[in-house]
Amino acid sequence: MAFHMDADLPPGLACLKNVDTLLRCPICFDFLNISMMTKCSHNFCSLCIRKFFSYKLQCPVCNVEATEQDLRNNRLLDELVISFQTARQQLSKTTFESPPISPKT
Amino acid sequence: MAFHMDADLPPGLACLKNVDTLLRCPICFDFLNISMMTKCSHNFCSLCIRKFFSYKLQCPVCNVEATEQDLRNNRLLDELVISFQTARQQLSKTTFESPPISPKT
Ligand SMILES: [Zn+2]
Ligand SMILES: [Zn+2]
Ligand SMILES: [Zn+2]
Ligand SMILES: [Zn+2]
Repeated sequence: MAFHMDADLPPGLACLKNVDTLLRCPICFDFLNISMMTKCSHNFCSLCIRKFFSYKLQCPVCNVEATEQDLRNNRLLDELVISFQTARQQLSKTTFESPPISPKT
Repeated sequence: MAFHMDADLPPGLACLKNVDTLLRCPICFDFLNISMMTKCSHNFCSLCIRKFFSYKLQCPVCNVEATEQDLRNNRLLDELVISFQTARQQLSKTTFESPPISPKT
C-alpha cells in the first residue's frame, strides 16, 4: 500500500485508529483472538493470557490477582474484530480507489 | 442529513453497519450504555439488564439463568462505542463533504 501511518491505516481513515487500538490485545498487540475478559474487565487473546498466567497469576494490565477460572469469553469482541477488519478494507477501497457512492449494478 | 439508510449510516458507510449493530443493546437497541456482560457472554446496558432482572432472572438473549451478581462490567465496549461514534461522524464528513485527504493547516 502507498499510505502508511500507524500500522496499516491510510490517512483518510486515521479517525478509526482508536477503534483499531481498542480491539488489540495488550500482550501481543495483534487483534484480539478468542477474547477472554478478566474479573477486572481487561481483555486478552485466550492464548496470550493463559501463557501469562503460567508465569504470574495477575492481570498484565492492572496487576490485580487473576486466575484462569475467572476468565470469561468476550465473544462480542471477536465479532467486532471481524466486522471492523472487513469494514476497514472496504473503506480503504471506497475512499481511495473510487467515488464515494458507486453501488455495483 | 441527506442520506438515510439503516438508521443514520450514509450509503458510503454501509460497511460499518455490522460494527454499529454489534455495539447496540439487544434490549433498547441504542448504543450500549455502561455495558454489562452476563456469564453467557451477552451484553446489555446496565440499566436495561437490571430492569429485566426485576422481571425475570434469565438472559434476555439466550434464556439461560442469570443474576445481577454475575454481571461483569465490559468497559472496552463503552470505549468502543465512543470511539466508533466519533470515527463515524468524521468519516461522514470526509467521505461526503470534502476530498479524502485535507488536513487542517
Ligand atoms: Zn494476544
Ligand atoms: Zn486488569
Ligand atoms: Zn439498553
Ligand atoms: Zn445469554
